[in-house]
Amino acid sequence: MTDLQPAFILVRPQMGENIGAAARAMLNFGLSHMRLVDPRDGWPNPRAVAMASGAAGRVLDHAGVTGTLPEAIADCAYVFATTARTRDLTKPVMTPERAMEHARALTAAGRKVGILFGPERAGLENEDIARANALISIPVNPDFASLNLGQAVLLCAYEWRRETDGAPPEVLALAGTELAPAIEVEKLGDHYEQRLDEAGFFFPKTKAAGMKLNLRNLWSRMPLTRADVQTLHGVLRQILRRGSDGGQA
Amino acid sequence: MTDLQPAFILVRPQMGENIGAAARAMLNFGLSHMRLVDPRDGWPNPRAVAMASGAAGRVLDHAGVTGTLPEAIADCAYVFATTARTRDLTKPVMTPERAMEHARALTAAGRKVGILFGPERAGLENEDIARANALISIPVNPDFASLNLGQAVLLCAYEWRRETDGAPPEVLALAGTELAPAIEVEKLGDHYEQRLDEAGFFFPKTKAAGMKLNLRNLWSRMPLTRADVQTLHGVLRQILRRGSDGGQA
Repeated sequence: MTDLQPAFILVRPQMGENIGAAARAMLNFGLSHMRLVDPRDGWPNPRAVAMASGAAGRVLDHAGVTGTLPEAIADCAYVFATTARTRDLTKPVMTPERAMEHARALTAAGRKVGILFGPERAGLENEDIARANALISIPVNPDFASLNLGQAVLLCAYEWRRETDGAPPEVLALAGTELAPAIEVEKLGDHYEQRLDEAGFFFPKTKAAGMKLNLRNLWSRMPLTRADVQTLHGVLRQILRRGSDGGQA
Repeated sequence: MTDLQPAFILVRPQMGENIGAAARAMLNFGLSHMRLVDPRDGWPNPRAVAMASGAAGRVLDHAGVTGTLPEAIADCAYVFATTARTRDLTKPVMTPERAMEHARALTAAGRKVGILFGPERAGLENEDIARANALISIPVNPDFASLNLGQAVLLCAYEWRRETDGAPPEVLALAGTELAPAIEVEKLGDHYEQRLDEAGFFFPKTKAAGMKLNLRNLWSRMPLTRADVQTLHGVLRQILRRGSDGGQA
């Protein structure tokens, strides 16, 4: 099993059994890079271990655990978020098939891909979605959409492994650039948010949280390269410097 | 939901919970034609009903039940048998993807297709396989092949539903958003370029043209919506305003 694979990231997973089931689902398709963000019942989790059993237990042993989502995706060049409900945030939406084509191309080019799965009951929050580059929407029957966490993981893992010959050129074009890892985009977002906050941009207070979320979503929606991130930091710094010089050219 | 669909045939299924889970898995992808051959615990099965719940219960209500496999596939023009283990019988073997392509073509031509799933513990017997036209082998990790009945059903149902014909090349189509026309992106670029020029960002002079071009390229490379353009104009204006207020928050 190659080391080059996407990370399947369970965000605030609730039941240990589901975490174990997810590990089994992944390993059926040769995937073993699991990450957990703030699991509800802590970690390690005996129920997860009991459900995983066998080789899948090793997936759990090696699972990375973080307290926050930004930490979990810090090294990711591209992040997908699985979602059942339609969302208000503007974000590209793909089928698992198309998403995994992208993921394979990115991974083959040495870029780390992260795939987010939300808590069993409510799914991912908008704050989670805002950190993703694109959404994965599994095309289920609108009259009976009842996929659970393990099933969503299974379908994505299956699509990752399903062979398709010749990825379309636009997929490879994305993979050919030096995309900024999520941690750099996060810091860019922090920089703008902080300065804009000081400048009174997030006004009125009732709209502040929504405006901040919208801006975060904008940064992560863009395919920003490392150079872009540096440029945008520089833009902000220089504009501020100009201001503090009292407007002198 | 069209009547033209393959029959998912559970052969000697053991646990009611798994039958219910299979019904749910099918209905997630709009499939409702279930057949049961000699279910171990008889029929109806309260455990199956409890697991199915909601609309999936109706799948169980309408499930055909027969004592033998030949009766269950009597009307089928083509029968697939899912199998994990390699078999001695000479039989074509396909991936779920390829099998469902065939299934869709046959179904569109008005031919009934049957897909067999074996008992949980041992899978299909050779006597069952002998009635099938082809085998479906799900390409699982040979070192950890542990798909259960519900998962096998889920993957076949998913493949049945997965669209494969002429998906548009524009993968990153934003869901229902209003991309900014080029003229608006151009004006955004003008705004930033002008203010950054006043702020002395394009320095040294020998690099100025290249830096301006790079920034223009950044804006047009992004899939900016009209709302994004407005946001980015606002970001720039507010930062400048803050500056001209002498840095007061």
